[in-house]
Parts: sequence; C-alpha cells; structure tokens
Amino acid sequence: MAALPKQARIIEVGPRDGLQNESQPISTADKVTLVNRLAQSGVPVIETGSFVSPKWVPQMADSAQVFANIERRQDVRYTALTPNLRGLESALAAGVDEVAVFAAASESFSQKNINCSIDESLERFAPVMDAAADAGVPVRGYVSCVMGCPYEGDIAPEAVRLVSQKLMDLGCYEVSLGDTIGVGTAGDVKRLLDVMLKSFDAGNLAMHCHDTYGQALTNIYAALEHGLSSFDSSIAGLGGCPYARGATGNVATEDVIYLLNGLGVQTGIDLGALVDIGHWISRTLNRRNNSRVGNAIGACGV
Amino acid sequence: MAALPKQARIIEVGPRDGLQNESQPISTADKVTLVNRLAQSGVPVIETGSFVSPKWVPQMADSAQVFANIERRQDVRYTALTPNLRGLESALAAGVDEVAVFAAASESFSQKNINCSIDESLERFAPVMDAAADAGVPVRGYVSCVMGCPYEGDIAPEAVRLVSQKLMDLGCYEVSLGDTIGVGTAGDVKRLLDVMLKSFDAGNLAMHCHDTYGQALTNIYAALEHGLSSFDSSIAGLGGCPYARGATGNVATEDVIYLLNGLGVQTGIDLGALVDIGHWISRTLNRRNNSRVGNAIGACGV
Repeated sequence: MAALPKQARIIEVGPRDGLQNESQPISTADKVTLVNRLAQSGVPVIETGSFVSPKWVPQMADSAQVFANIERRQDVRYTALTPNLRGLESALAAGVDEVAVFAAASESFSQKNINCSIDESLERFAPVMDAAADAGVPVRGYVSCVMGCPYEGDIAPEAVRLVSQKLMDLGCYEVSLGDTIGVGTAGDVKRLLDVMLKSFDAGNLAMHCHDTYGQALTNIYAALEHGLSSFDSSIAGLGGCPYARGATGNVATEDVIYLLNGLGVQTGIDLGALVDIGHWISRTLNRRNNSRVGNAIGACGV
Repeated sequence: MAALPKQARIIEVGPRDGLQNESQPISTADKVTLVNRLAQSGVPVIETGSFVSPKWVPQMADSAQVFANIERRQDVRYTALTPNLRGLESALAAGVDEVAVFAAASESFSQKNINCSIDESLERFAPVMDAAADAGVPVRGYVSCVMGCPYEGDIAPEAVRLVSQKLMDLGCYEVSLGDTIGVGTAGDVKRLLDVMLKSFDAGNLAMHCHDTYGQALTNIYAALEHGLSSFDSSIAGLGGCPYARGATGNVATEDVIYLLNGLGVQTGIDLGALVDIGHWISRTLNRRNNSRVGNAIGACGV
C-alpha cells in the first residue's frame, strides 16, 4: 500500500451544508457559537454560510449576521457559498476568506437542482470568478454526484473530470468531489481518482462524502491511499439527505478525525472538543447525533 | 495498492452472536425462519446457535430445536459455539457442520468475561478440540479484543498472535479476529495484520468487526488489502455492544456486501434478499435496523 499523507485538512461544512439541510430552525446566536467552538477545536476551514436568496434557502438568510458576529481567528479560514454575483458581493462585504461555487457531474441533476445545464451553470459562475479574482479571494469548486446520481445512476469518471477541468480553468484552486447521495464505494473512489489524477494533482482535489450507505470513511481511506488529503465533513453528521429520508447525510467530522487519528494522519483538531460540540448542537437542534464516535464516547465514556 | 481478493466468504453471525446480545425475546420459529432465509440469500456459513448453559445465555436455550427445524442446504455450513465438552456433544447430536471456541487477547477481558486466564481457557478447550477432531468436525477459533480491550485499552498485536498460534496449535482451521468493542481503525488493522501475516496465511484468518465507532467497513477494506477474505457480519447489525450502550455492535451484513459488490469482490449473496431479511428481523424484534444500506434502500427505494 502507498504511504498515506502525513497531514490532512478538514473542511467543516456543518454550519452551511449541514444546517441548510436540517429542518429545525436555529438562531443566529447558536450558529455563531457553533462556528466559534469549531474554530477553537482546531478546525482550519469552516464553511460558515451561504449568500443566496433567502427564498431558496431560508436557513442561510442570516449568513451576513453570522459573519459579523463570529470571533475571527487568524488561523481559521471562514468560507461561504456564492452561487451568483450578488451573493459574491454580499460575501465580500461580510469579509469572507474564501468562496465556493458548485456544479454537477450529472446533467439531469443540474437541470433538476438548479434548472440549467452544466455548461450554463459554469457560464453563470464566470463573472463570480472574475470578481473574486479582482478581490483576491480564492474560489473553491464543488462537483456533485461524482459517484452516482439519483436520476441517472452511475456517473462516468470522465464526466467528473470534464466539469472539474472547467472549474479549474475558470480559476478554482481546488475541486471538492461530492458523493451527494452517498452511493459510492471504495471501488468507485479508485475508478474515479485513477481518472482524475491523470489531469490533476491530489493537492487540488478534496472529497466530500455522504454516509448514506455507510461507505464514507472507507471512501476517505481509499482517497488517502490515492494521496488526497482534504476532506469535507460535518459536525455530528449535520445535514440530511433529501434523496434518502431517514438515512444520514454528510459524514461526521468526529468519525473522520477518529479514523485519521488511528492512521496517524495529523489534523490539529481536538477530537474530545469536537465530540462535545457534536452533542451540544444535536441537543440544540433536538436531533439524533449522527456521529458514531460521538454516540460511542457519549454512551460509555470510553 | 495490492490487488484485492476476487472472492470473499461471509460468516453470518446474526442468529447467534447477534441475537445473543439482543434484549428482545425471539421465538424458535422466527430463528428458524431467519436461518432459512439467510441460507436462501446465498450466505455460505451461518452461525446458527450456541450450545451453552441456558443459565448463561437464555437467548440460545433452543439451539438444538433450531438445528432440528431448519431446512438444511448442502451448500451452507451451519455452525455453533461450543465452549465446553458438554456443549460439543449436544452440538454433534444436533448435527452441526462446524463448531467454534473462543479466547481473548486480553487477560483482563478473559478474567471478567469467562473467569479464567487465557491459558486456562485454552486448556479447557483441549478436550473439545479432541472430541471435534474425532467426530471430523472442523473448529473455528474466535479471539476477542484484538484491537482494544474495555479494561486494558490497547492490545499488542503480539498478544493476538500468541493466542491465535495456540488456537491453531490446538487444531483450529481458522482464527476470527474480533474487534469486540469496535475501537480499531484501519491503522490498527495494518499494525495487527503485519504481525499476524508473518505467522499465518491470510486464508486462515477472518475479521470480526464491530461498528461501534463506525470503522468496521474501513477495517474490512484494510483487511482485504492485506489479502484476508473471510469476514464475520450480522444481518441488520443484530447484536448490541454491552460496553457502549446506544451504540451499535456487529457490522451489518448488508453494508459489507454493498462494499464488496462495489469493489467487485464476489460473495454469491443476493443483497436485495439480505435487505429484506434485515427489515423483517428488525420489525420482528421491534428494533432499529442498524444497517446503513438497509435504511438507505428502505428509505428511498433506490
């Protein structure tokens, strides 16, 4: 087996991707507390909000207030999703460190999710990318459905490579490969990355795994074996999956850190602090804690 | 990465290891149905019961009746746990295809679990092994706490190797390495198997993973990369974990098969049939289905 990376970078997506997909309301103050506690635990990148129309995503309507009230740490990068130029301008006004745009690897998903083709979505991002470049703010690209689509089923790795290349050509410094419905296995990761790594450096790719089928940690492990070292995850597994009710969404940050600790891969994150945050936010939202590690440690005190 | 085995063998432990650790009562008829349905789904080995004192394990008091009433298939091996000579004799009378004995890799766990030292437990098995050999019945050895003990914490791989060697010397054809409290990660699997494979062939080792910390599938994947191809699992994740209340126990067979299917590793097992069985037994026991795959497929019909 190839040697694993010595360090990994966690992109905590709970405050945005997680909360956006939770049905329970959450106050601005609780969001601010969540972001601050995550920052204190050692998480280096926190997706803190989304600058989109509150008509589309009511849970993110207060992202500007969240940015205005968090305690900014120099060693933490606070990011936001900005699907259009108006969103970018609001994000820049809020003082974001980085923004993100998103596209799908599946035409059907793109049409049903954002009502346009993949290429049309990329055209819409062009002015966002230009304005972000002018402001000196790095842009991350998300690609969804990289290992399967709820409408099309299997997705060819070449389709993922193509849309990723276009995002890179537009100026993204990194592409996060999203298994949006959590159907991929380590076999799919291998097939996908064998194609992707012919065009991209592992350092420019991240994995964004959902744990719907319980495969997320194994997929992250397989990605580590391919040299990837950036992983999106969500505290307490925040974030449901609209395509699999009752099943879980984002992989829990606690579970990823437990795995990485066991592998000797450094993250600089305090697992005990994370577990406490996961229990706190789960209680606050009156939801089940979807972290296996959180439940195991919370249950028996080991 | 090393090539993975082309085929894997699943040892279904739900009817014994699973049900034994469930608090809900279950009728003999339901046990028989469970075993028969698992056999029909293509599972090649089914741990069907345990021949121990009903004072110790009331859930297994009817193992002889279960063996008497199941529909025996020639292509399925029906096994039972036999901790002593009396149990073995009952098991042989019931017509088991294979028996199993167990020891711990942790002295503290051995003392607290079965009130004797590891070596004393092995001495007790000697007559069981002899009688099984006389009857021509193969014996499997379980080793518990191979990657951690609830009393001692970390367990040295050499301790696992030592007790495994003694079980092999006594006549076991295979040793199943149990992560009894589910604390191991892929890093622990690598450290353990790097030691074990100096003394044993991969074909004589199995992994028995608990999913308490969500690491089971990743550990199985890491074991596959080391050439192991025999894995214990439990339909619907049957079996709690007495050391981590609220957390899950055995890894779910459905989840393992989903992983193996994605890796192109053949098992001959019908995943759809397994998912149906998992939902049925969960309903029958009025418990949560602990298979991620079962919940995902049951939830959205994918």
